Amino acid sequence: MNTLTLEVGYALDTFYLLMSAVLVMWMAAGFAMLESGLVRTKNTVEILNKNILLYSVACIVYLIVGYNLMYPGDNTVNAVIPGISFFLGDDYPVAAITAGGENAPVYSGYADFFFQAVFAAATMSIVSGAVAERMRLWPFMMFAVVMVGFLYPVEGYWKWGGGFLDQLGYLDYAGSGVVHLAGAAAAFAAVLLVGPRTGRYGPKGQVNPIPGANLPLATLGMLILWMGWFGFNGGSELKISDVSSANHVARVFVNTNAAAAAGMVTATLFVRFLFKKTDLTMSINGALAGLVAITAEPLMPSAGLATLIGGVAGVLVVASVLALDKVKMDDPVGAISVHGTAGIWGILAVVMSHPDATLHGQIVGIAVIVGWMCGLSYITLKIIRMLTDLRVSPEEELEGMDIHECGMSAYPEFASSTELRRIGKIAAAGAEKAGSQAVYMNASKATEPSS
Amino acid sequence: MNTLTLEVGYALDTFYLLMSAVLVMWMAAGFAMLESGLVRTKNTVEILNKNILLYSVACIVYLIVGYNLMYPGDNTVNAVIPGISFFLGDDYPVAAITAGGENAPVYSGYADFFFQAVFAAATMSIVSGAVAERMRLWPFMMFAVVMVGFLYPVEGYWKWGGGFLDQLGYLDYAGSGVVHLAGAAAAFAAVLLVGPRTGRYGPKGQVNPIPGANLPLATLGMLILWMGWFGFNGGSELKISDVSSANHVARVFVNTNAAAAAGMVTATLFVRFLFKKTDLTMSINGALAGLVAITAEPLMPSAGLATLIGGVAGVLVVASVLALDKVKMDDPVGAISVHGTAGIWGILAVVMSHPDATLHGQIVGIAVIVGWMCGLSYITLKIIRMLTDLRVSPEEELEGMDIHECGMSAYPEFASSTELRRIGKIAAAGAEKAGSQAVYMNASKATEPSS
Amino acid sequence: MNTLTLEVGYALDTFYLLMSAVLVMWMAAGFAMLESGLVRTKNTVEILNKNILLYSVACIVYLIVGYNLMYPGDNTVNAVIPGISFFLGDDYPVAAITAGGENAPVYSGYADFFFQAVFAAATMSIVSGAVAERMRLWPFMMFAVVMVGFLYPVEGYWKWGGGFLDQLGYLDYAGSGVVHLAGAAAAFAAVLLVGPRTGRYGPKGQVNPIPGANLPLATLGMLILWMGWFGFNGGSELKISDVSSANHVARVFVNTNAAAAAGMVTATLFVRFLFKKTDLTMSINGALAGLVAITAEPLMPSAGLATLIGGVAGVLVVASVLALDKVKMDDPVGAISVHGTAGIWGILAVVMSHPDATLHGQIVGIAVIVGWMCGLSYITLKIIRMLTDLRVSPEEELEGMDIHECGMSAYPEFASSTELRRIGKIAAAGAEKAGSQAVYMNASKATEPSS
Repeated sequence: MNTLTLEVGYALDTFYLLMSAVLVMWMAAGFAMLESGLVRTKNTVEILNKNILLYSVACIVYLIVGYNLMYPGDNTVNAVIPGISFFLGDDYPVAAITAGGENAPVYSGYADFFFQAVFAAATMSIVSGAVAERMRLWPFMMFAVVMVGFLYPVEGYWKWGGGFLDQLGYLDYAGSGVVHLAGAAAAFAAVLLVGPRTGRYGPKGQVNPIPGANLPLATLGMLILWMGWFGFNGGSELKISDVSSANHVARVFVNTNAAAAAGMVTATLFVRFLFKKTDLTMSINGALAGLVAITAEPLMPSAGLATLIGGVAGVLVVASVLALDKVKMDDPVGAISVHGTAGIWGILAVVMSHPDATLHGQIVGIAVIVGWMCGLSYITLKIIRMLTDLRVSPEEELEGMDIHECGMSAYPEFASSTELRRIGKIAAAGAEKAGSQAVYMNASKATEPSS
Repeated sequence: MNTLTLEVGYALDTFYLLMSAVLVMWMAAGFAMLESGLVRTKNTVEILNKNILLYSVACIVYLIVGYNLMYPGDNTVNAVIPGISFFLGDDYPVAAITAGGENAPVYSGYADFFFQAVFAAATMSIVSGAVAERMRLWPFMMFAVVMVGFLYPVEGYWKWGGGFLDQLGYLDYAGSGVVHLAGAAAAFAAVLLVGPRTGRYGPKGQVNPIPGANLPLATLGMLILWMGWFGFNGGSELKISDVSSANHVARVFVNTNAAAAAGMVTATLFVRFLFKKTDLTMSINGALAGLVAITAEPLMPSAGLATLIGGVAGVLVVASVLALDKVKMDDPVGAISVHGTAGIWGILAVVMSHPDATLHGQIVGIAVIVGWMCGLSYITLKIIRMLTDLRVSPEEELEGMDIHECGMSAYPEFASSTELRRIGKIAAAGAEKAGSQAVYMNASKATEPSS
Repeated sequence: MNTLTLEVGYALDTFYLLMSAVLVMWMAAGFAMLESGLVRTKNTVEILNKNILLYSVACIVYLIVGYNLMYPGDNTVNAVIPGISFFLGDDYPVAAITAGGENAPVYSGYADFFFQAVFAAATMSIVSGAVAERMRLWPFMMFAVVMVGFLYPVEGYWKWGGGFLDQLGYLDYAGSGVVHLAGAAAAFAAVLLVGPRTGRYGPKGQVNPIPGANLPLATLGMLILWMGWFGFNGGSELKISDVSSANHVARVFVNTNAAAAAGMVTATLFVRFLFKKTDLTMSINGALAGLVAITAEPLMPSAGLATLIGGVAGVLVVASVLALDKVKMDDPVGAISVHGTAGIWGILAVVMSHPDATLHGQIVGIAVIVGWMCGLSYITLKIIRMLTDLRVSPEEELEGMDIHECGMSAYPEFASSTELRRIGKIAAAGAEKAGSQAVYMNASKATEPSS
């Protein structure tokens, strides 16, 4: 009897973790849509391919080595150096669970692996957006192998695997630091090395807008990420099968949603205050910033405090995007601001609600994660640069990465407005010279409903 | 022992409610994609921003006041006037559940809040589609605050909070009336006040088609809504942890799916019968109408009856769309027909399967919801109109809301076919005048495979 | 007590099956986005409409007759001929479950129906991609009725309903054969009858690329399918409420993900080796091939072996796509290669991990499924061809199915690049004749950032 109930509890926790993992896996689509909506048409196929490939490579590399490095169990050297082993062990036998006791596993180890693997892939996804439109695909994939196989699991071990950051009292519920700030720090190193997109910054320091080509896709991507975040944060309680855990998970859902909503609203209002426009891309980034910020501690705050934490993140992300452009750090999708700036804020904000959090512990966590991920990423990318170019050639950049790297176009049948303007000038000039000015004037007043 | 099983049951019900809520949250993406696919490119950013902002504002407003107004518990004045309080209370303690008894809560209160909050947001989403392409963003958001903070929770209280509509015997399982008809009634009032889009109706009463700009997005939106509806209807059983409830939830899933499928098929066939074409937008609306209609009672009908109810809704929605255009009620996405007409049908159809339903009770429910939501929305919008224009200026409408309200374009790199036609006329005229008719004739016969 | 736990287990299994079914239902959106992204703009509305209609028709036909044919229970004639009955019976009463015992149902029969119905729809979706851009909508829907109402349930009965393929020892966990190969075999017959798209193959046997019009949509479709596959394979364990089943389901999730990841990577590398380009569409097909291949046995392999099985599928699908083009079997989305070739590989690969699998049994399964589905589909389509044309007229094909069948355009406001090139030639010729060569030269050097 007792056994039967224990089994149902084990099954429920496993199912809950698997559903959470599916939602986080779905975030791969969120990143892919967000990034392909915010780049130009000529680089769309490449960013799509980068996104789906990095997910696949991350899953394989994490399976082979990353997971065991991050969660070595007893196979550890010390609190800094995890042990190493490969692939997955057997799953928990039935007997171990039904025997019960304090140490009985609460869910399938395979479910845990899958949940952790999709986190690794999400971390890597953060980088792809920041270096979009100029970093070549294959050096990026090489970096993905190193990052998911070594850089991320090691810092993950320091916190979630029981390493020194955990022992130091650094608190990070679902990974504002371990995942988001880590991804942003790696992205920062990569942007330093590949430089801004050609034409992004003018000779006198002006910032030239390079608008995203497909904003419905970007909006869809944000909404997918928002949805996936319920698995990301909600699953990080790791248990739901008793009353207390169930209440916790529900509270995490509410706070996650509240922070995202508040981040979107404050970012929108702040931009509107600054520029008198309702800027969709900043609304998107505000929501994502709210999500990142609440991730460090989505359980302890009241829903009101979660709203506040998200709201501050929405303002910070706007300021951060503007500031990064001042120093010519070109980040096409705002990944460093969303995941880095809002991540730091979220880590610090833990002290507002968690009684065990210390400002010291949180700051050490930030410093270690940024130092490790930014430093090692920089070194890794330098080494990769010795083997091959990180960045496309100026000619390839002008013509687009899609044709050069992928041999195809994302929207082959759709006419480019740039090309249309060019032909319009030719046509107008030809018509003028030929004396058909009248036709030109008449035709330019098209007032059809579908215009 | 008993306690342990009770805890697992509580946890399962909480998880079931949270997963259902995530699916309903996901409907925000469904509305955003549906509406951005059915408007013109020049108004796409604005409708996207409206959709995501209304979701965020709805969640915040519902958190602060809406939820407590709709579910006042003992804090009620009478069956018409709910009490008022703010933010969320504490969640249920473990002791309360494990003590068991009739009144033991069956799931986390936070899960309940989240499930209800996404319903409020969905109700508001219905309005945005109907006033698309001409209602300004900020007055719309002001209205959203009033609707989610006051109008919707009050009528929600009347039925689901235990108010007078519930006591009168009005039956509405998941909200054909409380959500869908309510949203449609508010939309009706808004459309009355903002008027039709310029150019929609000709001087002699003809209806000028204004085709949606991106039909794959609209189709995706419908499929997202369909998926989300399993959370919407399936979650409204509010309990799954015993055999009877589990059977009920499964039956709700089957009937919801059957009604949607039937609605799509009958709408498609009816339009084909009328116009000899397979109209994708009507197939979409037919499915949504089937979903709305079954929402009032997705449990009691057999799967065959659910198919019939959905099928009738598919025919009704087509007739309703055509009828609204006759009276110059311009609804770009068919929201009033989908959520209003099919909603009324669904509410009435409850009498076909539920033994406790009375035609009288259902009609009173319809009348009260329509009267309250339409009347109060009209008054609220009138007041907002004293503060600011509800509608964009004719010039802004012509040039598009995206540039004027958001300062950006949804598809900035894609050439407009209207512009292309204009330039084509100029080029042809110029070429003709210049005597290059031959070139024109040759070039006009392009027969490439990718054409 | 015992009863209470049994009830929670029943409820958990039901909920698990319903969530799995929702994920498989969501695959309808995956197919719709994949196919609408891979066809040309002029056939986009039609393929969208086909996809959503086939889902609806499949659900209705499967409800009326397909489900009972596939799972006749005791109502069977013999191991080849199932019995026939209509609609759904009553759901399991509470008493039957709480009485317990070996034969107690473990989940709601309605949940089982819904799970099976979405499988039927998925099988049908495979066909639509292969005949895209030339098979007319209504004969396709007629075929869908026969396939979902008769062809698929009968072969499904042979394996999953307990028929002769099951008795013969043919193993197919979630349907590499019963679903995917079956769909591909029907698609093969259909492609044989409708022939290739006009212009696809040149007179000297060359293959003219016909690029898909919207690759972000196609990528989204693949990611939706991947997500849905966790329901497809994960749900096919049919039980999760004890430790052993929960471990199994988790393992299925891990293996499903690993095979997809590996398929994408090997397909990408293989194409890169062959053509020096990173081909997004082949990355997509590689992932799908990995998913199809692991579907026959996602439980028994280790994660390493699952990676291998998926990886081989990724290579095979590329080879298959190239080979089919050699024999002029035109399959716009690669459906026959993804679901057929990878399906066969997956069925054979079962012998690598399942101790009860025999090469003989697997080969018989392949032969029976291909023979039945391809043969009967061919005959059915021949009969339909006596009633109406299967294929659009050459003129309709040139102008696009959207205008002729649906009377609308998927992207009505977007200018076509073909048209733009045509007008560009006219404008340039006119300008040249008019002597405005200088303007032409200046205007052709547009180097704006947004180009």
